[in-house]
Amino acid sequence: MNMFGRLRSSHVVIVGMGLMGASLGYDLRGHCRRVTGVVRRPEAVAETETSGCVDDVTMDVEQAVADADIVVLATPVRTILQQIDALGPRMKPGAVLLDMGSTKEAICRAMDALPQHVQPVGGHPMCGKEIAGLSAAEPGLYRGCTFVLCPLPRTSPDAMALVHELVTFIRAQPLILEPKRHDRLVAAISHLPYLGAVGLVAHVMAVAQEDPLVWKVAASGFRDTTRVAASDVRMLLDILLTNQPAVLTAVDDLIAQLSSFREALAQQNEEELRARLEAIAKQRRDWQKNFETH
Amino acid sequence: MNMFGRLRSSHVVIVGMGLMGASLGYDLRGHCRRVTGVVRRPEAVAETETSGCVDDVTMDVEQAVADADIVVLATPVRTILQQIDALGPRMKPGAVLLDMGSTKEAICRAMDALPQHVQPVGGHPMCGKEIAGLSAAEPGLYRGCTFVLCPLPRTSPDAMALVHELVTFIRAQPLILEPKRHDRLVAAISHLPYLGAVGLVAHVMAVAQEDPLVWKVAASGFRDTTRVAASDVRMLLDILLTNQPAVLTAVDDLIAQLSSFREALAQQNEEELRARLEAIAKQRRDWQKNFETH
Repeated sequence: MNMFGRLRSSHVVIVGMGLMGASLGYDLRGHCRRVTGVVRRPEAVAETETSGCVDDVTMDVEQAVADADIVVLATPVRTILQQIDALGPRMKPGAVLLDMGSTKEAICRAMDALPQHVQPVGGHPMCGKEIAGLSAAEPGLYRGCTFVLCPLPRTSPDAMALVHELVTFIRAQPLILEPKRHDRLVAAISHLPYLGAVGLVAHVMAVAQEDPLVWKVAASGFRDTTRVAASDVRMLLDILLTNQPAVLTAVDDLIAQLSSFREALAQQNEEELRARLEAIAKQRRDWQKNFETH
Repeated sequence: MNMFGRLRSSHVVIVGMGLMGASLGYDLRGHCRRVTGVVRRPEAVAETETSGCVDDVTMDVEQAVADADIVVLATPVRTILQQIDALGPRMKPGAVLLDMGSTKEAICRAMDALPQHVQPVGGHPMCGKEIAGLSAAEPGLYRGCTFVLCPLPRTSPDAMALVHELVTFIRAQPLILEPKRHDRLVAAISHLPYLGAVGLVAHVMAVAQEDPLVWKVAASGFRDTTRVAASDVRMLLDILLTNQPAVLTAVDDLIAQLSSFREALAQQNEEELRARLEAIAKQRRDWQKNFETH
């Protein structure tokens, strides 16, 4: 089989028409043989049809995946785990199963238990919004973002080539990582920032018990540092619970970092504080420059 | 003297042509008798003139304030403390001294020690950017933001009326607070989020020691939660050191909050986690709605 141009002749079935699934639909529709969206709620059928992000919509996931060349699971992590078990065996020989879940170790383990005729690849696009759902979806969401891929030892070069074609077609940058390494890195840059934001809001809520005016003085600094605390809790709970060891380690280090800044401030150790804050500000500015040029 | 329209006939001297001072200049220039900018560095004279944010620029702060009807101190907190002592006594009888420092207790204490002929008012506009300096300044920066005012017991109603006129003229919303209360509230919504962001970057820097790829997977969640960690360190050091007790209390509570989330996650206490994360997400969304309608 020709390894190039396979995406164009593929029937892509996207399970879950939330922010990620529907945005993927927008990018792929018209460029594949057919793009099917799978939804769970009856109301979502008409909503998805109206949005125009896919060629057709169905609630019959088992039938849909049986005809797919590529199945993309775009649901919360623990739903993905169930879907791998339930749907994988119904797929065609050689069909590719890609997921877009935010943790990868548990998912790749489940993928490894699939029948050999399925070609599984773990995936995680590093983009998103704190607003979930179809209405937040948009074409071009993946443009420029890092798209982590976790092929399994059993994954064929053909399957990886097709996934690579899909990822680069939506203008994302593929980055191949071991599942365990992925989970440790995203604990640091995504799951810990979520818990940090949650902790900041929890603190302001505690202060507000005594002085509700605190909400009135909160401004752009509070807005940005805590934006992710408004994220979809169901999605985040799945993430935290399937990446628990790495998240606990990260939280412990954040508490240690905060305690150490607290000590320097308690001792009014101005020189130490200045040196550390300057190094952190510089590092943050350097990262921003790289991030923007992507 | 007529209490209205006094701003129009006032000579306003803004000490410090950074983000806040220069933005104030943009908003006031052409609407006051004269707007003078005071800078410290010789290069800043031409830069400020070129920007057009004030009518004239000088490095001679002592002469400038002697002619002012309103002096606005737009420098870091500990510089403000020095300037209150040095410049206050040189001001005209009845002239108003307003500052825009981020902490208020130490500043208002210093203001209270001024000669009686000066009319001091503590101020803190709740807006800003992580980028400092004249080049980041813009007209309309204060529009819609809460502008905390801390009048002293000695401050005359006339002086407060003039400051109120200035604040509402730049479309900010005045909010009168006791200095101690202000400092406790901003510790929660500004100084703690800064330290939280600093802690998150410090954690990623520690992870990067072993795996530099962590910077590559960092995306919009990391960008937003840590944006303020790139803030001007000199300004932030002044803030932390002049609001030390409130900041230490806030850090202690954040550590307690994080520890409690850590415990719930360690025990996989899903129901508790869900209930708390949902309450926090809802509170954060409610706040955002109010903030946006300002």
